[in-house]
Amino acid sequence: MVENKAAIEFGRQNGERFVEELKELLRIPSISTLPEHAADVRRAAEFVAAELRRIGMENVRLIETKTPEHPGGHPLVYADWLHAEGRPTVLCYGHYDVQPAEPLNEWTTPPFDPTERNGNLYARGAVDDKGQMWMHVKALESLFAANDGKLPVNVRVIIEGEEEVGGEGIARFVREHGDQLRADVALVSDTEMFAPELPTLCVGLRGMIYTEIEVRGARTDLHSGMYGGAAPNPFVALAQIIAKLKDDNGRVLIPGFYDKVATPTADELKAWKALPFDEEHYRETEVGSRELTGEAGYSVLERTWARPTLDVHGMPGGFVGAGAKTVIPAKALAKVSMRLVPDQTPAETFVKYKAYVESIVPRGVEVTVRMIHSGDPIVVSTDNPYVQAATGAMREVFGTETVFVRGGGSIPIVGDFVRELKIPTLMMGFGLPDDNLHAPNEKFHLANFHRGIESIVRFFAAVSA
Amino acid sequence: MVENKAAIEFGRQNGERFVEELKELLRIPSISTLPEHAADVRRAAEFVAAELRRIGMENVRLIETKTPEHPGGHPLVYADWLHAEGRPTVLCYGHYDVQPAEPLNEWTTPPFDPTERNGNLYARGAVDDKGQMWMHVKALESLFAANDGKLPVNVRVIIEGEEEVGGEGIARFVREHGDQLRADVALVSDTEMFAPELPTLCVGLRGMIYTEIEVRGARTDLHSGMYGGAAPNPFVALAQIIAKLKDDNGRVLIPGFYDKVATPTADELKAWKALPFDEEHYRETEVGSRELTGEAGYSVLERTWARPTLDVHGMPGGFVGAGAKTVIPAKALAKVSMRLVPDQTPAETFVKYKAYVESIVPRGVEVTVRMIHSGDPIVVSTDNPYVQAATGAMREVFGTETVFVRGGGSIPIVGDFVRELKIPTLMMGFGLPDDNLHAPNEKFHLANFHRGIESIVRFFAAVSA
Repeated sequence: MVENKAAIEFGRQNGERFVEELKELLRIPSISTLPEHAADVRRAAEFVAAELRRIGMENVRLIETKTPEHPGGHPLVYADWLHAEGRPTVLCYGHYDVQPAEPLNEWTTPPFDPTERNGNLYARGAVDDKGQMWMHVKALESLFAANDGKLPVNVRVIIEGEEEVGGEGIARFVREHGDQLRADVALVSDTEMFAPELPTLCVGLRGMIYTEIEVRGARTDLHSGMYGGAAPNPFVALAQIIAKLKDDNGRVLIPGFYDKVATPTADELKAWKALPFDEEHYRETEVGSRELTGEAGYSVLERTWARPTLDVHGMPGGFVGAGAKTVIPAKALAKVSMRLVPDQTPAETFVKYKAYVESIVPRGVEVTVRMIHSGDPIVVSTDNPYVQAATGAMREVFGTETVFVRGGGSIPIVGDFVRELKIPTLMMGFGLPDDNLHAPNEKFHLANFHRGIESIVRFFAAVSA
Repeated sequence: MVENKAAIEFGRQNGERFVEELKELLRIPSISTLPEHAADVRRAAEFVAAELRRIGMENVRLIETKTPEHPGGHPLVYADWLHAEGRPTVLCYGHYDVQPAEPLNEWTTPPFDPTERNGNLYARGAVDDKGQMWMHVKALESLFAANDGKLPVNVRVIIEGEEEVGGEGIARFVREHGDQLRADVALVSDTEMFAPELPTLCVGLRGMIYTEIEVRGARTDLHSGMYGGAAPNPFVALAQIIAKLKDDNGRVLIPGFYDKVATPTADELKAWKALPFDEEHYRETEVGSRELTGEAGYSVLERTWARPTLDVHGMPGGFVGAGAKTVIPAKALAKVSMRLVPDQTPAETFVKYKAYVESIVPRGVEVTVRMIHSGDPIVVSTDNPYVQAATGAMREVFGTETVFVRGGGSIPIVGDFVRELKIPTLMMGFGLPDDNLHAPNEKFHLANFHRGIESIVRFFAAVSA
């Protein structure tokens, strides 16, 4: 197709300008979690909206998400171009907000002063997600430029400013105004490649329930000298409960916990085995623990992608200072979460978990189990033409077949797209495992920025064919 | 003895003045833990020293405890009168420092504005220990006044200003200059009566070891979505360890832990059974938990006085804020202490505990067990003339027999007296269980202040006989 080749050529000739524009966006410290940066967050939204307008997108607008219940809401950026009659509609998602940059002294160059070194662009948000979102915008610009101001497919763009703080605004918008995002497929570039040079589609994400167990013993804090041996100790009780949640081999002991766990297909498991992954290297370089843990009989990729887990994140309460204080605390808490996989559901899992905890409460204490938040696990079907379009596009660019992976964490918006819009979502990301997401010296490998733009151009063209 | 009756009479006639003087001392906010009150602490020391000088004590001086290693040291007050040839020497101990007064808004009248209500004197330090220490001073004054400036026994007085912050200064002084405190018996009034109207000698204290268990998993904090199922979780590991320290019935599972535990004598146990103590009332009013816990087959008094225990005071590390953070912390800590009873020793118990913890370390984590501090358990023999003198004195005043109890906590100086000075220590206190030590609205029942002075006068006279 003509527009395809010309668009790719346009992208190549304008690549340096694209990077300079991205740097301008990266200079805006749009840290969504810090109220003092609210104006910066809005400035980033306006910057993106202006560019969408300039390249030829229509109906460009900011959608406010602030409500009395959600006073810290940041605007969504919406745009569309819907004149490719008879062609599918692609919904492009990204986010323009970023994580805080602390600890600042660990950055080689300042987080909001984008700097190129060794073929990488260093800045907070370089890859997560301003750089990847900008690939979408620049792919659209290339297609408009090469095709007389037209696109080969219909496109809607929705870009949020709260991804790093929970995404409440966009979740509500999808629930309440899903019709305004009607599309055939969603394209999300907020993930990474499994390894350099290995084009990757992420086709599954674990869900989760995040909970708190509160254990109460005595009415007030007591002195352990006077009351030790008579007053219940909430931390000991909590430890006894937690020790009964998981056995020594990492298996969760909640009755029925594994009932709904679906096994990946034989093809999927075979593909994972073929991935370039060395468990010992992973242990040494990524985890750094003496040995890895988890359920016996499953590989690390299975354990982190396709098996549910249970973790304790912290146990607030009592005395946590230096030295000694001889208190029997009146209460103790544990932050406990479970990662879920298809076909487990958060609601059903929470019910089983709560009932089990309540059945193992030690003597003398009272226990409350609370849900803090939850998210559904998802798997994306791979037998649809959009997946073929994406893998075909990336084959052209990278010269190799795409690998299908899953993610152990969750990207809540993907669940919302699948559930509310009922469309397949392609998680086609171009980050690298060492891009330092959420950490100092975040970077984007610039070759991948350009290859991402070209992949997306080719993807749009293939969808249109 | 003449001096006895006259001294008691002197005390009765001057009782009101004694209370007014005590109020003056209580107005000095000698909070030893707060550096901004260091001058107040010194002022209290000087107030006490001046009074000891005025009543006729000799060699009165402040002994500095500040060293480069102990920069916050507060002075000891020393005094003696050693002219009762052929008579025993009594070492009187007390402390002039107090706990902080927070939360201030829970005090009915301000903590440093001593106020009489319903026969009680309310103020921070009223009973712990300024009021009880003042009983010693006023008993000595009464004896001097009634006996031509002489005492019936030899007396040394040592009063510290760091009891509420660990007592490091006096411990070092006892170790290094024990000869300056040579005596036949020590009298400590820093405990309470078992019940109103029930004269009480405390004859045993539990010892302790206070430790930290540190568990390390991954090299840095990891995201539980990406690594959950492969990275070890230090809090889960710590919970598994703690759950193996104590069984569901409160019995400590460290091998050999109970080997050296001495059973109280049949007489002692019989005496404890006769004490006015209702476990259900104690549960309801003092502890407030659903039920009491601890080793089966032992009464609450046995469990808190004569049985060792294990408690967890807090588990620092990880995420302790509100809401959710999906971190697998790199490390987790637990503050774990054990109360010890005769003839357990801290050193031997720590060795057994450490070896046991190291033998139950879960997969994938590394563990360090640290001792923070320790104290020996003690029991005071009751078959010596000083105990007879004390019980006889209190029988005269209260009209009833003294009960012998133990304490569940520790008073480190008592261990130092027993160990370094090798003398029996009488813990003869006149506080009441509801005197609100270390809490708002601390008080001293004034009738007990006066009965305490009379008891001490009679005790000195009896020791001299």
